[in-house]
Order: sequence, then structure tokens, then C-alpha cells
Amino acid sequence: MTTSSQALLRCYDCGCTYDHGDRTRCSCGEPLWFDLDVSGFEWPAETNQETGRDPATAGSWRYDAVLPVSAPDTTTLPPGSTPLVRAGALDSFADCGLYLKPEGQNPTGSFKDRGTAVGVAHALDTGADWIGTVSHGNMALSTSAYAAAAGLECAVFVPADIPSERLDLLARHDPHVFRVEGDYGRLYEETLALNTDGDAGVTFVNSDTPLRVAGQKTIAYELLEQFRLGSSNVPSSPNMPSSSAVPDAIVLPVSSGGQASGVWKALRELTRSGALADDDIPRLYFVQAAPCDPIATAFREGREEVTPIDADETIAVSIANSDPPSGTRALTAARDTDGAVVSVSDEATREAMDRLATDAGLAVEPSSAVALAGVRKLSDRGEIAADESVVTILTGSGYKESVETEPRCRDIDLADLEHELASVVES
Amino acid sequence: MTTSSQALLRCYDCGCTYDHGDRTRCSCGEPLWFDLDVSGFEWPAETNQETGRDPATAGSWRYDAVLPVSAPDTTTLPPGSTPLVRAGALDSFADCGLYLKPEGQNPTGSFKDRGTAVGVAHALDTGADWIGTVSHGNMALSTSAYAAAAGLECAVFVPADIPSERLDLLARHDPHVFRVEGDYGRLYEETLALNTDGDAGVTFVNSDTPLRVAGQKTIAYELLEQFRLGSSNVPSSPNMPSSSAVPDAIVLPVSSGGQASGVWKALRELTRSGALADDDIPRLYFVQAAPCDPIATAFREGREEVTPIDADETIAVSIANSDPPSGTRALTAARDTDGAVVSVSDEATREAMDRLATDAGLAVEPSSAVALAGVRKLSDRGEIAADESVVTILTGSGYKESVETEPRCRDIDLADLEHELASVVES
Ligand SMILES: [Zn+2]
Ligand SMILES: [Zn+2]
Repeated sequence: MTTSSQALLRCYDCGCTYDHGDRTRCSCGEPLWFDLDVSGFEWPAETNQETGRDPATAGSWRYDAVLPVSAPDTTTLPPGSTPLVRAGALDSFADCGLYLKPEGQNPTGSFKDRGTAVGVAHALDTGADWIGTVSHGNMALSTSAYAAAAGLECAVFVPADIPSERLDLLARHDPHVFRVEGDYGRLYEETLALNTDGDAGVTFVNSDTPLRVAGQKTIAYELLEQFRLGSSNVPSSPNMPSSSAVPDAIVLPVSSGGQASGVWKALRELTRSGALADDDIPRLYFVQAAPCDPIATAFREGREEVTPIDADETIAVSIANSDPPSGTRALTAARDTDGAVVSVSDEATREAMDRLATDAGLAVEPSSAVALAGVRKLSDRGEIAADESVVTILTGSGYKESVETEPRCRDIDLADLEHELASVVES
Repeated sequence: MTTSSQALLRCYDCGCTYDHGDRTRCSCGEPLWFDLDVSGFEWPAETNQETGRDPATAGSWRYDAVLPVSAPDTTTLPPGSTPLVRAGALDSFADCGLYLKPEGQNPTGSFKDRGTAVGVAHALDTGADWIGTVSHGNMALSTSAYAAAAGLECAVFVPADIPSERLDLLARHDPHVFRVEGDYGRLYEETLALNTDGDAGVTFVNSDTPLRVAGQKTIAYELLEQFRLGSSNVPSSPNMPSSSAVPDAIVLPVSSGGQASGVWKALRELTRSGALADDDIPRLYFVQAAPCDPIATAFREGREEVTPIDADETIAVSIANSDPPSGTRALTAARDTDGAVVSVSDEATREAMDRLATDAGLAVEPSSAVALAGVRKLSDRGEIAADESVVTILTGSGYKESVETEPRCRDIDLADLEHELASVVES
């Protein structure tokens, strides 16, 4: 393991390398990621021998051999170690062998904690007092909480029209919130410029920055390791059936392209280290909401690059990014693994969200349900076969957002308890 | 391991035994719990060899050797395996060595998932189609979700005046909700009568029923095992300092007394099996909100029994039980372990909640923050010493409830980004 200040950044596209800290974009315009020596990686993932942590419960730090930073000495928010669960009750809906990775069980309720943890560890390593991000959702909440836990100041840049409910969620961890009037995509890039300049003294961990992508890739390491343990030994999910050591496909929502990049990065590292055979690489499918689907549009149109679109409103607000900074990288990842990028209607997303809550007991946000709706669409199209194993990443908990529902409710008097219950049970 | 239908129930107070299924209250009026053979229990907890699950990540089913039911063959909601974290940043606030057990990282965001899982497993074992509970909070949500995941119908009994926000949370999992006009304490007991009669065909897993208490006790097994692994190997929390193999005290909120009973039960089983020395038994402290503190009142007044009180409103709504069904058992647990039952003001709870969110990054509900406020009060009184290790159970996530805050917010224009950020960072 190297430290982040020694590590190299590399462009996935043209191969150029840079020192970390210099920049987050290649001179060709594409995003950079860490270039680490992963040749020694083997399953099961190495435990850090110094701390002697239990490998199975050290969360995403279990994979610190392939991370650019070490775990902090102490943390109240260990990320990762979310379960991988078999969801047989949804097989017919998904028309495949469905596995779910509920990332909502991370400390702040979303997958973002993995990348945030790496960013915060880097900030602590380099003596920074501040950490920052551009987000109005899961990433903002995650960064605010981890900064609080690490004793760092936190700057969160949100759009001027952020709903007060979202602001209240963040405010519990007391970050410095900047409501910004102006183009959100430009804000994203301009904060990164401040980051690389270093003048402001703030480490920005935006959604496709190298530090965050490094942390986010641990989802893929973790789910592949859990899947690999298979029917004989699957953490948190007794007797999970599995005929192969590797799933046929991994499906996840895509927004900025940062998480999609992280999953692809993990697959590349695992094949390079020999821990994953070339024949075994799962196909990567990324899913967007149809009202805002720049990456799916580029995929559909066979283009080489993702360009900004004029988007409509969608219920999947957390992934409504009309100008995704790592969009082209995500597009490349899908093509490189024989996968695809598709988009689904809000109606399909609502149905998937409902099925997850009522058939699997998992309440997720619309942006997560998008992924399951995508699986169904891909199965309908014949891109996913009924006998294939598909891992769907559920990025965030749905309990954090209020949703109006139609409860199945009856008003009764205590005196009528037995009668009223019996009338429902027997009907 | 026995099956729940074979298991005996025992009264902690008079020692009477009953078959499971006959009743949940002893003829003396006190609640019953399972009487299991735990003589073979050893650290580390046994793994179920049949399924070969990884012991460290099988969640609370890791302790199935001391549970009255086996893990279901498959589940999308594995409970437990929440981290135990050292919270040094709050040591001075708590005036002791503080450890936190954030139970909000369970599948539905609260500690209730442990007991629900056991209740649902029993319902599946016995072929029941329905499961039920009396709750308007965490337990209702947990039971609804687990029922959905297990393919069971679910009946949830709530007070007639339940806020719509809480109803919306439940409704995602589509339980049958009964809004009941009438005394809530009586409703609790009358549903248990339906349960034991069996006529309605509904397995009720209310908060102090034997099945739930059995599941809830796994929090204590888990935190003691994590603490025991100590500085050399603490799951999810690298380098946690600890000078002893056992914490000096365990502090948790108390409402019905069911969870308090579960923790006490675990300590009794562990001493009986020899896995915990008599000298090492942690003191149990239970905390209530002052506006509704029947158990603390009985403790303060040196009474033998907890009696119902006329309560006032409190922000800690989840633990506002003025007539706790296992109140006397909780009172006995505190005295038996040289602990205490105390109550704290809503103001102290607010302060503790704020400190948890801003110094440890943990957003909890007021009912959880009550426990930390209690630690501070006990330290102030000299009942907890500064050099003692104290594990505080944070029962539920705070993200599920909306809270009005005062965000630290400034409105800026994108053009002024660098300047505005610098002015805050440098101030
Ligand atoms: Zn390049
Ligand atoms: Zn008795």
C-alpha cells in the first residue's frame, strides 16, 4: 500500500499519468483515477496485519491493500460490510437469479460512505482541516457526517433551490452549507480547480474524483468476494444458491459516472492481479431515469462521448445529472464489459421500488430502484437470461426521504379487537 | 439448539416454567422468557456448521446456539453485525471511556430487527401466515419489513392519533394497519391474549414477548464479543483501546423493558455458561425521558414494582411508555447488576443528540440520545468513573424522522465561489 501523496493518477483513455494533487482531469479532458500496484491481491482479501482487524467486519478498509490511503486509527463510521442477499422472491419480476447489495446499511444510509471514508482519511493524512463536496443528496450527507466524526470542517455546495427537507438532513452534522446560484455542472468543475490549486485548503471529494472512485470500488471487491464464497459460506445470507463463483452481471444506477467507474476499476484491477479470470468478468449494466439519461442516450446512439442534455424532472432526483463528469468513462466501461446503459421510466422505477419494499422488505430511494427496473428491462430485451445471476446494487436507503403512500388502514375500537382482526385474517 | 415449540418458558421472578405457546405472562403476573440450555456456549460464538456461514458476518444468527429458533434458509434482511465503535471525541462529554453500538445500521434502521427476525423465523417454523405487533415506531416498521421479506401477512396495531409521517414509513411495506381507539396498554396485553389463544392465527411479537427478548439479547452477546476482541481485533473499529475484556457498564434507553430484559438475560446466560466471570458482569444502566419515567421513578423511590404513571409529552416518543409491561423486570435487572435506572430532561437529550451528530457523525433519534444523556448524568453523580469503559446502545437511526434544524447556510453566486469559500475557511 502506498500513501495517496505518493500515488500516481492515470487516464483510463490515453494512459497519461500525473502525480496526485496536481489535477483530477487528464489533459485530454477525461477523469483520472489512481494507478496502484495490485499485483499481489488475492482472495480472500488480506487483513491489515498491524491492526489485526477481523477481515470480515472491517468494512471497506478490508481492501486497504488496493486503496491509496490507510484506514484512520479510529472511526465511529466504518463503511461497507453491507450484506449481499439472494432475493428469490423477486426472481420472476427480474426474470433472472437476483442478488441485492443493500448499500443503505452503511452508516449514513448510502454507498457514498465508502468514498467519503477514503477522502477523509486522505485529508487527515495530509493535515487538511477542511473537506468539501458538491452535492445535495447522499454525498453531502455522507461527507458532512464523516467530517464531523473526523473533526474536520466541511463545506457543502448545494443548488440554490435545495428543498428544506434535504437541508435539515445535512444540518444535523453542522457542515458549512453554500447555496449557489449558477450552473451546477460548472460549480462541480470549479470546486475541483480550487482543490488542485490547494489555495483554499479544502480537499474536495466530488463524485468522480480519484479518492472517491477508489473508495467506491470497494463495493465491487466486496460483492465479488461475498458472491465467491457462494453457497457454502455467504456472509449474512445463509444458503444463498450460486452455481458459479462470479455473477454474470452487475447492475447499478449511474449519475456522474463515478460509481460506475469504481466498479469497472475494480474489475480491471482484479483481472490484472489474476484474482478474476478474463472469461469471468461480469457484464456491467448502468441504468438511468429516462427523463435524464445522457449516458444511455450516447450508448443508444452509438456515440463515443457523452454530451450534456436538456433533462426533464424525474423522481430519481439523486441521479438526475444531465452533464455527468465521468459519463464517457461509464459509457466505455459498459461497452468494454459487453454490458449496456439503459434508461427506465419513472413508472417502472415506482413499480420496482414497490416490489423491493413489499417482496424483499427493502425500502430504497427511487434512484436505487432504477437499477432493478433496469434489470427487468434488460431481461425483457433478452440481454439478461433467466438462468443468469445478477447482482443489483441498491445505492441508498429509502427511509431518509418522506414519501406519500396509501396505507392499508382501518380504524377500530379496542373493544372490537378480536373481531376486527379475525375479519381481516380470514378474508 | 432446540426449536421454539419444544422450548420452555420461565419466570425470572418466581421460577415457574411453562410450555412455549401457552402464555407470555407467568401466573404471578411477570413476563416470561425462554429457558434454554446455554451450558455449551463459548467465545467466539459458534458458527452454524451446517450452513458454514462466516461467523463474523452472519449477524445476530451467529448466536443461534442460544436462540430458540434457527435462522431461516434465506433472508434479504440479516439483522445485527452492527459495529462497536470507540467514540473518544465524546469521552470528555461522557466523562468516561465511551463506546457506541449504533443499531441504526440494522436493515430497517433500528435494534428491533434482531427480535423481529426471531419472531418471523418462529412464524415460518410453525407455519403461521400472519405476524403482528403493537407499535407505532421502530418495531412496527421492522415487523412490516421482515413480514414482507418472509412472505407473511402483517398486522400492525397503532394508536388512533398516529402521525401520518409514521404511517407513511410503515406503508411502504404494505402491512395491515389497525388504528385503535382505546387504551394502548390494554391493547398490548389483549393482543398477547389473542396470540396465546392462537384462534386468530397471528403470531404477535410485541416488545417484551419471549421471542422478541430472545432476539434482542443478541445485542449484548455481540457487543461483549466485539469488546472482548479488544485492541488487537475489534471488528469495524481499528485500534480500539480497551484495558479489560469486558466493559464496566452498558447503558441503554428503556421503554417497555423488553430490550433491558434481553441484555440482562444475555449476562445471566453468559455467567451460567462460564463465558463471563461473576466478577466481570457489567453494570446495567437504563435511561428514560424525565417526562415519562415510570421505571426510573420506581428505582428512585426504592420500590419493588413499577406502576403506571401519568406521563407528559417528551421528544423521545419511541420510549414514552407510561405502563411498561416488563418494567419490574428491568428494575430488577438494574438492581441485580449494581446499576441504576435514571431519567434525563429533553434538554439534556437534545444536547446529547447534537453531540453525537456533530462529534461522532452519528445521527440518532431522540430515544437513543437519551442513553448518552444518561451516561453524562451518571458520571456527574459519580456512579460511572472517568476511567471506566461504557458501552452505550444507540437503538435507532435519526435519519428516518424529519427534524427542523438551523442550518449554517450562506447564499452565494457561482462567480464568487473562491472568495466566499476563502472567507469562511480563513475566519
Ligand atoms: Zn487522457
Ligand atoms: Zn412468576
